Amino acid sequence: MEVKLAKSLGFCFGVKRAIKLAQENPNSVTIGPLIHNPKEINRLKEGFNVGVVENIDEIKDTKKAIIRTHGIPKNDYAKLKQSDIELTDATCPFVIKPQQICEQMDKEGYDVVIFGDKSHPEIKGIMSYVSNPIVVLTPDELVNYKISQKIAVVSQTTKKKEDLLKIVNTLITTRREVRVFNTICNATLDNQEAAKDLAKVADIMIVIGGKNSSNTKQLHNICKDYCQDSYLVEDLDGLNLEWFSGKTKCGISAGASTPEWIIDRVVEYISKI
Amino acid sequence: MEVKLAKSLGFCFGVKRAIKLAQENPNSVTIGPLIHNPKEINRLKEGFNVGVVENIDEIKDTKKAIIRTHGIPKNDYAKLKQSDIELTDATCPFVIKPQQICEQMDKEGYDVVIFGDKSHPEIKGIMSYVSNPIVVLTPDELVNYKISQKIAVVSQTTKKKEDLLKIVNTLITTRREVRVFNTICNATLDNQEAAKDLAKVADIMIVIGGKNSSNTKQLHNICKDYCQDSYLVEDLDGLNLEWFSGKTKCGISAGASTPEWIIDRVVEYISKI
Repeated sequence: MEVKLAKSLGFCFGVKRAIKLAQENPNSVTIGPLIHNPKEINRLKEGFNVGVVENIDEIKDTKKAIIRTHGIPKNDYAKLKQSDIELTDATCPFVIKPQQICEQMDKEGYDVVIFGDKSHPEIKGIMSYVSNPIVVLTPDELVNYKISQKIAVVSQTTKKKEDLLKIVNTLITTRREVRVFNTICNATLDNQEAAKDLAKVADIMIVIGGKNSSNTKQLHNICKDYCQDSYLVEDLDGLNLEWFSGKTKCGISAGASTPEWIIDRVVEYISKI
Repeated sequence: MEVKLAKSLGFCFGVKRAIKLAQENPNSVTIGPLIHNPKEINRLKEGFNVGVVENIDEIKDTKKAIIRTHGIPKNDYAKLKQSDIELTDATCPFVIKPQQICEQMDKEGYDVVIFGDKSHPEIKGIMSYVSNPIVVLTPDELVNYKISQKIAVVSQTTKKKEDLLKIVNTLITTRREVRVFNTICNATLDNQEAAKDLAKVADIMIVIGGKNSSNTKQLHNICKDYCQDSYLVEDLDGLNLEWFSGKTKCGISAGASTPEWIIDRVVEYISKI
């Protein structure tokens, strides 16, 4: 089987940085999974005794905590800073940016619209910096809010720019000032573009990544649009040999939280089919 | 002939205000035509001795000057203020707004993009409030400029919002912060929507307005899209009886600078055909 890797795939800058910080801080806990990849979380637990707690009240046995790439809410951060817990901040710098923007815009009296998923940890963190956050996924949802004439807009870092524009355009045509901060992360965008290019020419596409990772799921959706036989797997054991029957060219993409060691062994296995 | 007027047509707030100011200040001159309607300019000359000069250096015989609805460049305004000329400012408040925004954004270090026509007096005025204005009519023209990551955008008050969005969307996807001020005037937009609605059901459309008026020309273009027999006239004498042969329903629209007295006599004439 001929195997071709997408020109851009796998770990982004923020994930690499977070893993390095975790490895440099063994015997600690992260507040929520550091990244959305269970296998890598497991590796950090086994190799470095970096565990996971669900919230800050669970930090008991250890006095060392790491903030996940997606960030945490402002109040949690303040509590941790006041405690005697030794804190390492692995929040992706591209996530800190919208947090800072939101805090500043809120202070300046703008209504803050956040394009993102309310239930995603990144958005939970970002919205904590705004007194009355308006969190939407589509323009239709804007009607549920009373929105002033002065609006600031930020985006979840892993969203599609076309969807951001739909929301922004609705606001521009109905409001006096719309201050748009394009906080979509370029790394995720690069992975998406590369996956699309490869899916167009491949017989079969394998997207490797955590099934709880939103950017991985988005890569899978994009691949399906261009290559009917596109599959999402977390690792080797997710593969099914029947998928490859009659295929000669397999494209590989991987989420921003998928470690190289998983990608390598999947590629090695498929190339021997 | 059945004659139907568009639900919104003719003088906008800014034009009404300017005419009132001109009538209250007889024996004066306006710097450039007060509005883009030669017949109304003529009426102000004959009835109130309000003349027109092309630039501020021509203000000699009279010591009373009126600033046109479209505004004037900042330097001209400063010179007039320092002179002994008695000044009346008939700049439309909706045009003063983008002037103020541009001055403030320039001061705050934003690159200012103006969506509009460089040769239009309104834009000549607005761009004078920016140290390095970027004036474009289409997104393609943006490549001619070196544009920073922090951008403010304003629009000529009489432009179409869809065209503004095209420029804004190009900027949002390539720059970090885009601060959009929707300075398109609602009055013009209302006239456009009403003309469109009427053109859809009329046999023939007559758009009344100055042939040098950009908002009138835009109304004519919109009508042509929905009613093949659409004509632009400045007054009665522009009408051609042959146009009405075989027609039963005539729709009327008029530019924001078209006075009621012209509209009235055109309507009266057509209804008798």
